[in-house]
Amino acid sequence: MPLDERDIIERFFRPLAGEGAFGLLDDAGRLDVSPDFDLVVTTDMIACKVHFLPRDPPFSVAQKALRVNVSDLAAKGAEPLAYVISFGISSEIEEGWLADFVRGLKADHARFGLRLLGGDTVRVPDGPIISVTAHGLAPKGRMVHRSGGRPGDLLYVSGLIGAGAVGLALLKGEAGPWDALPHARRDALIAHYHVPQPRVELAPLLVAYASAAMDISDGLIGDCDKLAAASGCSADIEVEHVPLAEGLGATDDPALLARLITGGDDYEILAAVPPEKAPGFESAAEEAGVPMSRIGVLKAESAAPRVTWRGSDLNLVARAYTHKPQEGTA
Amino acid sequence: MPLDERDIIERFFRPLAGEGAFGLLDDAGRLDVSPDFDLVVTTDMIACKVHFLPRDPPFSVAQKALRVNVSDLAAKGAEPLAYVISFGISSEIEEGWLADFVRGLKADHARFGLRLLGGDTVRVPDGPIISVTAHGLAPKGRMVHRSGGRPGDLLYVSGLIGAGAVGLALLKGEAGPWDALPHARRDALIAHYHVPQPRVELAPLLVAYASAAMDISDGLIGDCDKLAAASGCSADIEVEHVPLAEGLGATDDPALLARLITGGDDYEILAAVPPEKAPGFESAAEEAGVPMSRIGVLKAESAAPRVTWRGSDLNLVARAYTHKPQEGTA
Repeated sequence: MPLDERDIIERFFRPLAGEGAFGLLDDAGRLDVSPDFDLVVTTDMIACKVHFLPRDPPFSVAQKALRVNVSDLAAKGAEPLAYVISFGISSEIEEGWLADFVRGLKADHARFGLRLLGGDTVRVPDGPIISVTAHGLAPKGRMVHRSGGRPGDLLYVSGLIGAGAVGLALLKGEAGPWDALPHARRDALIAHYHVPQPRVELAPLLVAYASAAMDISDGLIGDCDKLAAASGCSADIEVEHVPLAEGLGATDDPALLARLITGGDDYEILAAVPPEKAPGFESAAEEAGVPMSRIGVLKAESAAPRVTWRGSDLNLVARAYTHKPQEGTA
Repeated sequence: MPLDERDIIERFFRPLAGEGAFGLLDDAGRLDVSPDFDLVVTTDMIACKVHFLPRDPPFSVAQKALRVNVSDLAAKGAEPLAYVISFGISSEIEEGWLADFVRGLKADHARFGLRLLGGDTVRVPDGPIISVTAHGLAPKGRMVHRSGGRPGDLLYVSGLIGAGAVGLALLKGEAGPWDALPHARRDALIAHYHVPQPRVELAPLLVAYASAAMDISDGLIGDCDKLAAASGCSADIEVEHVPLAEGLGATDDPALLARLITGGDDYEILAAVPPEKAPGFESAAEEAGVPMSRIGVLKAESAAPRVTWRGSDLNLVARAYTHKPQEGTA
C-alpha cells in the first residue's frame, strides 16, 4: 500500500521540525527576526531527470535540494536559518528512499545550522520534485547584491570550476577526456555533481569586502554576464586564471575548456571586489581556508564583454547552461 | 522554439516583482519584519492533474496557487505580505498560458496586498507544478494555532461546505444529484473549485476571539479531527448545522452528505472559540460580513469523536480527502 501524505509527514518529516515549526502540526511556521538583521529569502526547485537522476542516492538528493538554496544565501552574505520544503512524490516512492532522503536533510541541519519550519507533501504524476524556500539572516542593510559591482572591481571565484558539468557527463556515460582520469578522481567529480559544497564560510567576507556577489549554478561565463549586467558593467574574463576541476586543469582543448566554464552545478561564489579591498579580501579568504582565484575585472557597460584564453578570444557556442530534462535517464 | 527560463522570468514575472525582490535580478529577496509582528510562513504545492486540471484556466490556476497559501495565513491570524514561487513547467508550455497565469497572480496581488519576492522557473517532465511559499504578519505573540482549543470551546465554520468537492465532480463529468442543479449554480460550484475564496477578513477576528483555527482543505470532518487532536481534544459535529453548498443543503441522502463534509477544496475557516467569547465573535463576524455557523463543540480527548445527523451517528467511509492524480484528466 502506498504511504499516505500524513504518514510521510508524521514518520519522516516531523522528527526534523525545529523551533517555530510547531511539530509540523500546524498550517504555518513562525520566524522570529531580530531587528539587527534582514531576512533573506530564496527558493529553488529541483526535479528528477532535470537536476538529479532517478538513481541518485536520496541522501544526496536531499542535500542538493537544501544546498542549492544555502549557496544562494551564502552569496548574499546571509547565515542559514530555517527552510520550508514542498515535496512532490509519485506513488511508487518507497519508504527506504524517504528515510534516506530525510537522513540527508538531517545531516545538513547540523552542518549548516538549518531547521525545518514547515512543508507540504503532495502526489505528482512524475516525481520526485522538491521545492525548498530557505531563509537566512544578513546584518541589517548589508545584504550583498548582484548589482553593486563597479567598473574596475576585480572578479574572484571560489574553488574549482567545471566539476559539476563533468560529474554529470560521467553519470550519463558520455565519452570524453574525463574517461582517462583515475577512478577516484572520477568519483570525486560525480560527488561534486551530487552534493554541492556551498561556501557558507564566505558569507561574512562578502558582507565585509564584496561590492557584488552571486553563486554560480548555470555556468561561470553566463553567471559573470548576469552579475556584470545587474551591475551595469561588462566583464573581462581571463580563462587561464580560472581554476578548473582537478585533473582537467592542464587541458589545451578549447572545446573542453568551453564546456567547463559554461557547464552547470558548480555552486561556487563569484564576487566583485573593489581593488582597494582586494588585499584584505584575499587574506581573509586565505584565513577562512577558502581558495579564491582572481579571474577578471568589471569594465564599463559600453565595453564588449571578453572571454580570453592566453590572449585570444575563446569561442563559446553557449555562455550559460540550461538545466533541462536529460535524455536516457529514465 | 520553447521559451527559455530567462525569457519567462524577464517577460512574465519581472513586472510582478515587489519591494525587496530587486527586480528578480538577484539570487534572493529581502523581507523587513517590524519587531511588533511575527513572521508567519506557509508553503503549498499544487500539481496539474492533482490539484487542478489540464484545461483549467491558467488565470485561476495562478489564483489557486496563491490562495491556498493565503487561506493558511488567514487561519493563523496573519495578514498576507509577500511570496516566492517555484514554477515547474514542461516544454509544451505556451506564451498565452503564461501570460494568463501571470495576470491571475497580478489580480491577486491587488486583492490580497501580496507582492512577489522571488522565484525559480525550471523544466519538469510533467507540469505545471507550482510551489508557493507565502509570508504574512501576525501581531507579535498572537499567531493562532491549531493546538489552542480546550474542551467546551465551540466549533465554527465559515461559508458553505462541499462546493469544492462538487465542483470537481462536475468538472470530471461524474454523474450525481448535482446534475439536477440549474446551469448557473453548477458553474458557481466549478468556480469555487477553481478559485478558493480565502477568508482574509477573518484573520483579526481569529486573533481576538479564537483559541484555535485552521483552514479546511482536506474535508471538514478530517480537518475537525486534526484541530481536535492538535488541541488534545475530540470533536462533536452536528451535521445538520453544517452549512452545505448552495442547492445541496436540503439533501436527505447520507452518502451525498458524507461526500460534502469529507470532500476537499473548501478553503473555509474552522475556528474553536471559548463559550464566553462566542457572542463577541459572532457579532464581529456578522459585522465583517462573514457567515459563520456553529457546528459543534470540543470535548475531552477521552470522549470518542462523534459526527451526528439529526441525532444519529453518520456513517463515514473516509473522514478526510486525499488529493491524488485524477483519472481521465489528461
